[in-house]
Amino acid sequence: MTTRIAVIGATGYTAFELLKILARHPSAELIIATSRQDGNLSIQDVHPALAGCFDLPLTQLDVETIRSEVDFVFSCLPHAASASTVGSLMNGGVKVVDFSADYRLIDLAVYEKWYGVEHPDGDRLGSVPYGLPELYRDEIRQANLVANPGCYPTSAILALAPLLKEKLISTNDIIVNAVSGVSGAGRNANPAFQYCEANENVKAYGIGTHRHAPEISQYCTFVAEENCEVLFTPHLVPMHRGIFTTCYVRPNDGISANDAFAALRDIYCGEQFVRVVNHPVETKNVANTNYCDLAVFQNNDRLVVVSAIDNLIKGAAGAAVQNFNLMCGYDEATALL
Amino acid sequence: MTTRIAVIGATGYTAFELLKILARHPSAELIIATSRQDGNLSIQDVHPALAGCFDLPLTQLDVETIRSEVDFVFSCLPHAASASTVGSLMNGGVKVVDFSADYRLIDLAVYEKWYGVEHPDGDRLGSVPYGLPELYRDEIRQANLVANPGCYPTSAILALAPLLKEKLISTNDIIVNAVSGVSGAGRNANPAFQYCEANENVKAYGIGTHRHAPEISQYCTFVAEENCEVLFTPHLVPMHRGIFTTCYVRPNDGISANDAFAALRDIYCGEQFVRVVNHPVETKNVANTNYCDLAVFQNNDRLVVVSAIDNLIKGAAGAAVQNFNLMCGYDEATALL
Amino acid sequence: MTTRIAVIGATGYTAFELLKILARHPSAELIIATSRQDGNLSIQDVHPALAGCFDLPLTQLDVETIRSEVDFVFSCLPHAASASTVGSLMNGGVKVVDFSADYRLIDLAVYEKWYGVEHPDGDRLGSVPYGLPELYRDEIRQANLVANPGCYPTSAILALAPLLKEKLISTNDIIVNAVSGVSGAGRNANPAFQYCEANENVKAYGIGTHRHAPEISQYCTFVAEENCEVLFTPHLVPMHRGIFTTCYVRPNDGISANDAFAALRDIYCGEQFVRVVNHPVETKNVANTNYCDLAVFQNNDRLVVVSAIDNLIKGAAGAAVQNFNLMCGYDEATALL
Amino acid sequence: MTTRIAVIGATGYTAFELLKILARHPSAELIIATSRQDGNLSIQDVHPALAGCFDLPLTQLDVETIRSEVDFVFSCLPHAASASTVGSLMNGGVKVVDFSADYRLIDLAVYEKWYGVEHPDGDRLGSVPYGLPELYRDEIRQANLVANPGCYPTSAILALAPLLKEKLISTNDIIVNAVSGVSGAGRNANPAFQYCEANENVKAYGIGTHRHAPEISQYCTFVAEENCEVLFTPHLVPMHRGIFTTCYVRPNDGISANDAFAALRDIYCGEQFVRVVNHPVETKNVANTNYCDLAVFQNNDRLVVVSAIDNLIKGAAGAAVQNFNLMCGYDEATALL
Repeated sequence: MTTRIAVIGATGYTAFELLKILARHPSAELIIATSRQDGNLSIQDVHPALAGCFDLPLTQLDVETIRSEVDFVFSCLPHAASASTVGSLMNGGVKVVDFSADYRLIDLAVYEKWYGVEHPDGDRLGSVPYGLPELYRDEIRQANLVANPGCYPTSAILALAPLLKEKLISTNDIIVNAVSGVSGAGRNANPAFQYCEANENVKAYGIGTHRHAPEISQYCTFVAEENCEVLFTPHLVPMHRGIFTTCYVRPNDGISANDAFAALRDIYCGEQFVRVVNHPVETKNVANTNYCDLAVFQNNDRLVVVSAIDNLIKGAAGAAVQNFNLMCGYDEATALL
Repeated sequence: MTTRIAVIGATGYTAFELLKILARHPSAELIIATSRQDGNLSIQDVHPALAGCFDLPLTQLDVETIRSEVDFVFSCLPHAASASTVGSLMNGGVKVVDFSADYRLIDLAVYEKWYGVEHPDGDRLGSVPYGLPELYRDEIRQANLVANPGCYPTSAILALAPLLKEKLISTNDIIVNAVSGVSGAGRNANPAFQYCEANENVKAYGIGTHRHAPEISQYCTFVAEENCEVLFTPHLVPMHRGIFTTCYVRPNDGISANDAFAALRDIYCGEQFVRVVNHPVETKNVANTNYCDLAVFQNNDRLVVVSAIDNLIKGAAGAAVQNFNLMCGYDEATALL
Repeated sequence: MTTRIAVIGATGYTAFELLKILARHPSAELIIATSRQDGNLSIQDVHPALAGCFDLPLTQLDVETIRSEVDFVFSCLPHAASASTVGSLMNGGVKVVDFSADYRLIDLAVYEKWYGVEHPDGDRLGSVPYGLPELYRDEIRQANLVANPGCYPTSAILALAPLLKEKLISTNDIIVNAVSGVSGAGRNANPAFQYCEANENVKAYGIGTHRHAPEISQYCTFVAEENCEVLFTPHLVPMHRGIFTTCYVRPNDGISANDAFAALRDIYCGEQFVRVVNHPVETKNVANTNYCDLAVFQNNDRLVVVSAIDNLIKGAAGAAVQNFNLMCGYDEATALL
Repeated sequence: MTTRIAVIGATGYTAFELLKILARHPSAELIIATSRQDGNLSIQDVHPALAGCFDLPLTQLDVETIRSEVDFVFSCLPHAASASTVGSLMNGGVKVVDFSADYRLIDLAVYEKWYGVEHPDGDRLGSVPYGLPELYRDEIRQANLVANPGCYPTSAILALAPLLKEKLISTNDIIVNAVSGVSGAGRNANPAFQYCEANENVKAYGIGTHRHAPEISQYCTFVAEENCEVLFTPHLVPMHRGIFTTCYVRPNDGISANDAFAALRDIYCGEQFVRVVNHPVETKNVANTNYCDLAVFQNNDRLVVVSAIDNLIKGAAGAAVQNFNLMCGYDEATALL
């Protein structure tokens, strides 16, 4: 038996990756793909790489049609637009994975401060599981709506959560330095992401203002069960895909890098998509995969925990399908290996 | 004594390269830089790499001011806009190098067919030297207005002209296959030139319709003194700068690759910016320089002549300064080595 | 029922792609992976991206062990070394896809001239099907040994063969201009393929001497049923994977680009991995896929046929698995979509 | 009057950049270029981009010849090899800029611990000025030998030194996270820096073990006049040139990002090659220049100081010529703007 699926907001890079995974998924049947684009475009018009995989028009978003025709929705809409649609979908029995940030933060005031908009479906905040199966698998299995994590938060939280949970590191003074490929910026034409601006260039951006900072801090706080204020600095580097995250943390008394390594290995030993390695972590090893690779080092009085993911897969579309598999009762790794 | 200069249309990539060269030129004094951009921007606002080099506001284009304050204008405006301005400037005694295509073709009908606009200053066509000093040095020295060549034509004509002139190759069946870095597309935000579209990607474009085709054919015809219809196919490759051109030509009876090599060496022996080499031609050897590197090979019954330039330097700003130097009586290589 | 597999020469880039595909193949069981590397390395030591996918040591090549333990061999050895091993394997009942050039040419003298070595298994030349299923599907199904095509030949022959077969183009004066990503050069440390040499660089290489020239000419000759001497010029461009091929051909009298397009569409209408498109052909649309995209244009008196493949997939490992599927009776597209 | 120059170890990437700058320098006359390469190679054989700029053979290193024929030596030899040669040159009256690490650390034991070799000229340690003119201009002017700084240290020390000197930040808990283009690894063929390994890839390396860590700590300690133990983590990113450094520091009581910005502006106001900016710092703005761009931000309870240089210019060859200019009495910026 297959699950009938709608992808709303199907023209961007994460939707493209999602469609590629769904094309390989034996139980996913794509019924509807929507876009605000004008004209009678099909999926292969906006994603020519998918010619021959899907023969489906892009349609305007219509909540009623979706509620009557599909079982599952992947919402790839921008924040605010997404919650506005998702809210009305939830009343109709469909299940939803939301790629936007709308349901990740549990505090309405924090959301509205960082995103600068009124939340269109704020009542739901706090009751939506965060779609990181490594932390919230049971909750995801039961959920009708899951908040797909941000890309930077995925890479940072997978590195930090076990160490915080096991009380191996201090909740104070956690520094997360991350670099991302350009696809993280999305597909819109933007002068700053033209080839000749982004190629052969590195820059930091959003220092102190990036919206993934409160998301990282919130989930670190949850697992640590005490307040974590994580300092987060993202950078843009000239590659298509991949995030490399370098976390500087303070070990608690007597804790060595070996202890931290052992704890990571132990906690993630049953996880198919987290690899705790003792060779160099490199983004090329996780490119086009749903893996997160982790390693830990001693440096002076700090531990340095490094993490690599593909921002479009484990940081977006792969995680979404992992959540989909859990929510629908399929094997968690279906179409992801 | 210095020459007072205006750069009109100063925000693009070729203007940026031009400004970098002018900053090193001992006799060039930049007085005016114009832009259609709104706001009170300065050069370093749009070209932060030039912070500390120029302290000049970007102003709106005003022909009267330019005529009264400068001796020399580099016009980096788009076609049609450029001729419209250049025409009025010419009446005022300033000298001009025009980066646009407006004065390169000598036949008004050909211009209007390929560019799809009415020419604003068509009477001047045919009397403006083509700014390739290797072919038209004497004419450039005497001129008040010079048509700076297109990037692809520069790379192709420097490869083909001596062989046509010396009657070593047939005027029939010349195929020019060229690949260019992305900066050739200019600085405008365009979905097709976003990093994630252009990186890790090659495509052909404008097959049979690229406007540089008639420009190449025209100047090949001039030097050959008989009609040359060159078949031209450009491609986009993932790099910032550089053009690599592969010309497939038919040698006349008894002409070998060695003969062609000797002819190229001979004709270009006094040229500072053309190197006829017997090691591999590679765009990295000419990147950020005003050089054109050439080599020639035998392959079956064809000669293959390859050529590399930096599209922004020898294919635009460097050639413009080379022309400027000739028009103002400076040493031709000033600021270009 | 699964097929037991050995991959010999498992450390290079094509072997890496092959292993990734085999990991997804429901009927492929990897039993042996060999390497000349010293030490007790495993697959994941040389391909850390495959950590968690395979838990297999790299062993020294031993023909007897392979003959007794596996059903199918993928040989990723270099030319000459490959035929030397394959020859002895063939006597043992295993089936083989050979990635090397050893069995592609049918004329021993041509092989020995272009490859500069004595052929270790020359008697077999001429009886081994060329592993391009679009041309030789029936022969491949019956074969115990298949010669996997070269990457450039795949892209060129898929573009040219139908037009030659249907007598739409002349067998004379075919020019094949191709550009390849750097992975085509293999994984060996080589100064010319260091990042800082290959990045931001384009060059032609092997003009008139590249070994894929006789391979292209031979199969064009077969389908045309008259002699084709194809002029081939490869180039290196700064990307990881992908080949873009631009073929300049002469249409026979009265044949237009539309005719050629219709013929390509017609011949390939049942093929899952060849897409004849009327949008721009770009290597990014075929990256990481087994597709070949084709389009055709008119330019002056020529047709220009363009073709894009992923050199590591359709140009190597994907084609090999396509052949494997045919030789073992699996669905041809298994693990390839 | 010109200065006669020898470049020893002339084949690498920093030597290439040095030669390009020297070609533009009106007072530098290159007399000797040495290499351990076999054969009768010339400069343009190993650096084809310099064809036409220099017509000089590469010779074997001969100390006596150098002492008798040149006034100034740039040593681009590896560590240990460099000091071994430089020591003998110093007795002959020539002046030297040493690109290697041999004279940067003042403590012999620290040198021998981090570099793992015996120092061939250890007596000189501690009396050789560190070639960062922004800190040691007067000492450099008087010196016969200058230790050209490491690339990462240049970017980090220029960011940190003024803040430490003015006591605006704590000497404790300074974290320096840096990313570098691949040219920092030098020109030797190395599997890890092949295009297909380094492209589309980010990794951290040398965590806790990189030799630039003690160099950064030493000069921070000098300017702070108290012990600074800097935690340093370098990363490799897919670009040719450029270093982006992100420093996480603790402001002293009451010190804001604005205070730090003002201090940086103040201290560097007379410096031609340091730009303290209030637009985003990006490596592309300093590529191919001798500039270091700096900016400072508040983030939680930290200041984040970011810095960008071209590792081959301000981080190597440009700094070397800046030192050369000072040591020979030329204008400090000659050939560097």
